Amino acid sequence: MRKSTKISSECSIQQTLDLIGDRWILLIIRNLFRGARRFGQLEQDLGIAKNLLASRLNNLVEAEVIEKVPYQDRPLRHEYLLTDKGRDLSPSLVALMRWGDRWCNDGAAPTVLIHAECGTPLDQVTHCPSCDNALDPSQIRSRPGPGSMEVIK
Amino acid sequence: MRKSTKISSECSIQQTLDLIGDRWILLIIRNLFRGARRFGQLEQDLGIAKNLLASRLNNLVEAEVIEKVPYQDRPLRHEYLLTDKGRDLSPSLVALMRWGDRWCNDGAAPTVLIHAECGTPLDQVTHCPSCDNALDPSQIRSRPGPGSMEVIK
Repeated sequence: MRKSTKISSECSIQQTLDLIGDRWILLIIRNLFRGARRFGQLEQDLGIAKNLLASRLNNLVEAEVIEKVPYQDRPLRHEYLLTDKGRDLSPSLVALMRWGDRWCNDGAAPTVLIHAECGTPLDQVTHCPSCDNALDPSQIRSRPGPGSMEVIK
Repeated sequence: MRKSTKISSECSIQQTLDLIGDRWILLIIRNLFRGARRFGQLEQDLGIAKNLLASRLNNLVEAEVIEKVPYQDRPLRHEYLLTDKGRDLSPSLVALMRWGDRWCNDGAAPTVLIHAECGTPLDQVTHCPSCDNALDPSQIRSRPGPGSMEVIK
């Protein structure tokens, strides 16, 4: 048990969730991916209270997942754009969406993500680059990585 | 704006987050993947209050993400196992973990996920099965799918 506790404290999943592990935050990021940029639009689309939205946006700016950029001078108005760090959450949202397609919608996806250029529905695979096989969760193990406390010591 | 609201209400990401969009729930699922099965072990590894853990586990059993199975008769004791629905959350946890590796640990992963058979670190790609290219978020669009309200009507 001691071992799992150690793993937990230096776990990338936990660190990710500390930043974005909140239902509203993930929905805000989803809407930014879909083209929303402004406070009022996010507020209306999400049906979220102003104070909750403001605090989540501040957290995301602080975490450098989004940036607040002026789009108008008089009066000063801002919009919110995903940074590279924010855009890199795309695979996580894709994975969560595909799970919902399968388990909350019997495989009948309400929205299909496609390759813009050719219109083909995208796929996401977890695979072994050596064997080139898609991996089932039962085939996955873990070992300490270069950022592990054990390795650093 | 009306359009985005409609998309939101039938969105698989939102439905997924309604079930598992809670930091504790995702950490519980992570620990079940790592081999934890019993209440006391989860409680100790996560440092979570008994009542919070009990309510999260009940929610997960209700959502059929885990099942509660007796492992001892006298006294009756249960353990918690991931169902197929639960195990299918593996790609989501992998995606969240890889993001944390890149953005919270400067690419130095504390824990590396490997293919059990050959020991190679796994990879996860979002790609177009037609063009066989890995897709950048800017190359992804969405369209109504078979489960869309628009299509059903």
